[in-house]
Amino acid sequence: MDVFEAIERRHSYRGTFAPQRVPRADLERIVIAGIRAPSGYNAQSTSFVIVDDADLLAKMAGITGSAIIGGAPAAVAVVMDPDATADKEFRFGIEDYAAAAENMLLAVTALGYATVWLDGMLRREDRAAKVGALLGVPASREVRVILPIGVPAELGVQREKKPFAERAWFNAWAAPASPSRTGS
Amino acid sequence: MDVFEAIERRHSYRGTFAPQRVPRADLERIVIAGIRAPSGYNAQSTSFVIVDDADLLAKMAGITGSAIIGGAPAAVAVVMDPDATADKEFRFGIEDYAAAAENMLLAVTALGYATVWLDGMLRREDRAAKVGALLGVPASREVRVILPIGVPAELGVQREKKPFAERAWFNAWAAPASPSRTGS
Repeated sequence: MDVFEAIERRHSYRGTFAPQRVPRADLERIVIAGIRAPSGYNAQSTSFVIVDDADLLAKMAGITGSAIIGGAPAAVAVVMDPDATADKEFRFGIEDYAAAAENMLLAVTALGYATVWLDGMLRREDRAAKVGALLGVPASREVRVILPIGVPAELGVQREKKPFAERAWFNAWAAPASPSRTGS
Repeated sequence: MDVFEAIERRHSYRGTFAPQRVPRADLERIVIAGIRAPSGYNAQSTSFVIVDDADLLAKMAGITGSAIIGGAPAAVAVVMDPDATADKEFRFGIEDYAAAAENMLLAVTALGYATVWLDGMLRREDRAAKVGALLGVPASREVRVILPIGVPAELGVQREKKPFAERAWFNAWAAPASPSRTGS
């Protein structure tokens, strides 16, 4: 799939998944897209636990209160190393995992699957640590995102975005659009 | 360009740029890719100042000490709103701008340009605020990334990544690869 089409089609899918499994070759392809994302100082601070065991998925759904994880045939737990850079003054762990997650969202889209970036809910009630313990993640690392992945059973679309002119300008904040923008 | 090819070809380009300008239609296409990235609560906390004025680019290079910005025909300043979410307990500003930046890196790659995610250098010596002031960015927002963009005059490749088995596993942290991985 063309990269611009994948960017346009990517959306946060919160519907149900069809029952078919996701082949491990596809899960690996998705995670390799994450591995290839840039990272501060190329520290590669993001790791990935790919879950396709139904019992583990059910437990993750129980810990997080996100039923969609239990209904998915697979999920990727995106794990941050907050201390990956030698220069502790400059931390890039969040940037690194977010770029990796975005690459995976596009790979998921291109392969015809659907997913949603589950993040904030892990920050409540010690859930990140509980999911980490379930998956054997060292205490020095933090589960920051879960991406449930499967074949969507329903249609999903990208949520509406504000128009270009409200979020982007040439050469100065909130500058009026120049005539050269006409028709683009 | 296929999304997996773009993910593989994306790299941090620190070489020189060819002298030709980047058409505004291409810069807009790149930034629209950023606009389409997901954001926490769809708050769309990331904004973009696209710079193709040579004088401004030279000043940005001076402030940041990054000569590559002055040598580029264009750059995108990626601006974070740290207070975008209604629920201040959960902030997603960094995740949001990182996902937007990654989409733009892929769009840059697909269109045949090159760029590099310049980030940490903005955190030194009040440089982010100085670039923000230069571009008229409100004090409540923060310039977090600059992406210089142009036609590369030199060849660039993605830095080597650790192998899959050192960063990703199935169903448990550091689990040995299962036989089903063979050949994949």
